[in-house]
Amino acid sequence: MIRNIATQVSTLYVSAPEMAQLVASNGVTACIAGIADNIHADFLRWSDFDKTARVANHSRDGVIELMPIADDKRYSFKYVNGHPRNTALGLSTVMAFGVLADVDTGAPLLLSELTLTTALRTAATSAVAARALARADSRVMALIGNGAQSEFQALAFQQLLAIEEIRLFDVDTAATAKLLVNLRDSGLRLKVCHSVAEAVRGADIITTVTADKTCATILKPEMIEPGMHLNAVGGDCPGKTELHAQIVRDAKVFVEYTPQSRVEGEIQQMPADFPVTELWLVFSGVRAGRTQASDVTLFDSVGFALEDFSALRYVYDQANKLHLGQAIELIPATADPKNLFGVLHNKAALRLAA
Amino acid sequence: MIRNIATQVSTLYVSAPEMAQLVASNGVTACIAGIADNIHADFLRWSDFDKTARVANHSRDGVIELMPIADDKRYSFKYVNGHPRNTALGLSTVMAFGVLADVDTGAPLLLSELTLTTALRTAATSAVAARALARADSRVMALIGNGAQSEFQALAFQQLLAIEEIRLFDVDTAATAKLLVNLRDSGLRLKVCHSVAEAVRGADIITTVTADKTCATILKPEMIEPGMHLNAVGGDCPGKTELHAQIVRDAKVFVEYTPQSRVEGEIQQMPADFPVTELWLVFSGVRAGRTQASDVTLFDSVGFALEDFSALRYVYDQANKLHLGQAIELIPATADPKNLFGVLHNKAALRLAA
Repeated sequence: MIRNIATQVSTLYVSAPEMAQLVASNGVTACIAGIADNIHADFLRWSDFDKTARVANHSRDGVIELMPIADDKRYSFKYVNGHPRNTALGLSTVMAFGVLADVDTGAPLLLSELTLTTALRTAATSAVAARALARADSRVMALIGNGAQSEFQALAFQQLLAIEEIRLFDVDTAATAKLLVNLRDSGLRLKVCHSVAEAVRGADIITTVTADKTCATILKPEMIEPGMHLNAVGGDCPGKTELHAQIVRDAKVFVEYTPQSRVEGEIQQMPADFPVTELWLVFSGVRAGRTQASDVTLFDSVGFALEDFSALRYVYDQANKLHLGQAIELIPATADPKNLFGVLHNKAALRLAA
Repeated sequence: MIRNIATQVSTLYVSAPEMAQLVASNGVTACIAGIADNIHADFLRWSDFDKTARVANHSRDGVIELMPIADDKRYSFKYVNGHPRNTALGLSTVMAFGVLADVDTGAPLLLSELTLTTALRTAATSAVAARALARADSRVMALIGNGAQSEFQALAFQQLLAIEEIRLFDVDTAATAKLLVNLRDSGLRLKVCHSVAEAVRGADIITTVTADKTCATILKPEMIEPGMHLNAVGGDCPGKTELHAQIVRDAKVFVEYTPQSRVEGEIQQMPADFPVTELWLVFSGVRAGRTQASDVTLFDSVGFALEDFSALRYVYDQANKLHLGQAIELIPATADPKNLFGVLHNKAALRLAA
């Protein structure tokens, strides 16, 4: 049988339940730490990557985006949507999946859920950035927005920055109640606040992770104190911001990938030449982060393809290690690659149309 | 159990073997005809689509591309590579898969192999274009390049244009021998030729579908006769062309989506203002195709996202009709979409990292 010598591209498929199993097996914080290590290592070799701003298709209620990136060995992309109204339908605002592929052949190596993984990598990125930008003695974080991403942010900052206390606020009190239940055994001190102002007063770090697709001003200038680090996660597409423009203007602003952040980040409120510093320059010691304790630093996070590349590397390694996922035939096996037609190997295929 | 009321996004997965089964079940020509109908219908509502040139990551030996598009109801993208050296490894030059998603929620409805499907939709597009551009009395086609795509092109032109005779040439005689075996029962008259010149002499249509990632001149000006239609399929990325520049200069040139074709098509050899006509304008009667029998028409095909959108619609409809494919959990089911953390529903997940 010629078919026996067919070359099969084997793609590992990791479903959402299998990813939940992977996270349960390693622990959330170990997953965040592992992804954070990959993110830090990959940002340090920034110039190795073929980078592009993500491609977005906007519709009335949301956006669907593709986020590709590659070095000379691996290619990855993520599919991700953002539909704030989804929660009313019982669906997640953000759903995602992605692929890790071999650059030499184009073969897809891994197809993975990335909804859970996006929450892990976003939290990991926030914490890696804060480790380089926040005051080293930061112990208290305000967490504004207690939705799908919030627990992951809290655990990442506990793990990577030794944050001890989280001050919670959400306009939806049920979201805050849910977080309290989920993190009751985390060892974090969780304080429920009744306004943004109450939550942020005296905090070392403020994380905003809200989801409205509007220009909001979750934080106002009078709330900002010297020495704070602001981790602005929720504003991530054109027309969606969380901070008052004056806060952005007064802070030292750090971004992932400038061409994308100018369009999607808080800095879309600023002129095109507003000075920002890319994170990788701080990680590599080329540029300073905070230079004094009283600086206000702002990580204007929008989410960049490299973070998903780093996360997909982690998932691929761990899924292989834990024997999770299954091999799927996404690509046809052909004994002779010039004989794609031979895949049909069935006289019925040649039947003329009715 | 709260988990029982979780909203599950159900994504239909159609693997490569299942697609082969779908094609065998309907017949190759019926699939091509079905996809051709969708392509024609979708091109007629061109302005309904949010279009973008594809995003390419180039490497030494190839390219990996993402091709997104959307109307106000459906979104699709295709992942596709082009690695001419893959055949030496027993892998296909072109491998692909793609997704059809719901614009209102961002939920992926279909994940499908697209390697086989790309061959079907490329052939369907060529035939739909030729039906509008070639002489109606065309009966003889030269087929230069007898690789993975060639049988599909031959069958598409037999089915949609009543082509009766195919003249074959490939520098690799084994490829031609393979095509002869695959199409022996097709009813087509297959003539093996020993040069490009011999194959094209007196042909009504010339289809070039070669794979080198170089600027080649498969067709030379002296080979072109009045009244011919040229279907140039193989040149589809920067630095990859098949026709001598003079042929392009002298022909009436038709393209899919101008911004992409200027970069990738045969017209990359021409100045930026070289006149071309988009196919949809011909289909809709706004612009003329061929105006006289002696015109030389050229379809400078590079492959556009809309064709994959049309093909994915066909696959989704037919897979549902034939009960092919399986539901996969690419997206986690959450009882409360703000409680993504709850998907982990396992105390082990909260375990601190070692």
